[in-house]
Amino acid sequence: MRTDIPETTVARLPRYLRCLTDLHPTSGPCSSEDLAHAAGVNAAQVRKDLSYLGAQGTRGVGYDHEILSKRIREVLGLTSTHPVIVIGAGNMGTALTNYRGFDTWGFDIVAVLDVDDARIGTRVDDLTVEPLGRLEEIVADKGIEIGILATPPSAAQPVADRLMAAGVQSILNLAPVILQTEDQVSVRRVDLSTELGILAYHLTS
Amino acid sequence: MRTDIPETTVARLPRYLRCLTDLHPTSGPCSSEDLAHAAGVNAAQVRKDLSYLGAQGTRGVGYDHEILSKRIREVLGLTSTHPVIVIGAGNMGTALTNYRGFDTWGFDIVAVLDVDDARIGTRVDDLTVEPLGRLEEIVADKGIEIGILATPPSAAQPVADRLMAAGVQSILNLAPVILQTEDQVSVRRVDLSTELGILAYHLTS
Repeated sequence: MRTDIPETTVARLPRYLRCLTDLHPTSGPCSSEDLAHAAGVNAAQVRKDLSYLGAQGTRGVGYDHEILSKRIREVLGLTSTHPVIVIGAGNMGTALTNYRGFDTWGFDIVAVLDVDDARIGTRVDDLTVEPLGRLEEIVADKGIEIGILATPPSAAQPVADRLMAAGVQSILNLAPVILQTEDQVSVRRVDLSTELGILAYHLTS
Repeated sequence: MRTDIPETTVARLPRYLRCLTDLHPTSGPCSSEDLAHAAGVNAAQVRKDLSYLGAQGTRGVGYDHEILSKRIREVLGLTSTHPVIVIGAGNMGTALTNYRGFDTWGFDIVAVLDVDDARIGTRVDDLTVEPLGRLEEIVADKGIEIGILATPPSAAQPVADRLMAAGVQSILNLAPVILQTEDQVSVRRVDLSTELGILAYHLTS
């Protein structure tokens, strides 16, 4: 069942879940139009996406809020907690670590690392910044599943290599560089310049 | 010509440009395979995307680095400078403002605003944090084209409303909420929870 879901559908599931948790914090039905707006697709696409999950809406009413939220969380694996490590305690790493929005989705930032002596030992949220040298030890001890790269561009690849060697299978890369990774490793990239580039196109067209 | 480019192609153009500027900083040919890796598509899709721009590669050699970079910049409107305002001088807003990567693409952060008296008047990069009350005045004075929302979730919609009323047509939303916007306004959203959600799916599948 899980492996039949197209990648493009998977990419929209968190947006549907965000719609369910934010726009409709109370239970009750949620229309495919609301979900469509959240994900930037049309209602037909929503119905198709959710059919992969075995979720069926009621015509003229919508989807049951509670059932659909639960089903999306199950499919995405958000029913358990995922330990996350953040590399880089600069502004971006600090912003991420302080960002409470992750908690409710089951992402638990358990360590923040940096190379800078001025940052090591300082507090970020309820964590103490650890030296980068402890990466492998911390990944093993805490069973880290996801690494977030908030390093300068030049440090991103070497740090990614160490995360992968330590067994981390999922990386969220916030550094504006393209990582070379092993096939079995999942990488998502957030490149803010890319997003601004798309906005610039719409400014001029 | 411009309006014929599909939205999905537009979304990949900044990634191709990133590939050209980062992986291949020197001039010379760039293969469709390299570009494909950068954008997470196959080489056939790259050739199709770039054909919308009238860019043709040479079989077995690739695309001319300089010509292709120039063409993508033209299409995206990155040949001129776009004044940008950042709302929110917390960690995320500060990280964005300090992030030099925008400059080379023609995005010029010219103002940072906040509501917090403790932040107003402090320096972020080479800017002084201004009070949110000056939003409309600054947008008009500096000809702001793009607004970046780095506010808490609850402030995002009211600030977006003020940006739109002031004439800003493009918004990059980093707050984890879905904005209600006017039809003629372009919004890109960066929701880090969404990215982690997609990674979580791959962890468990």
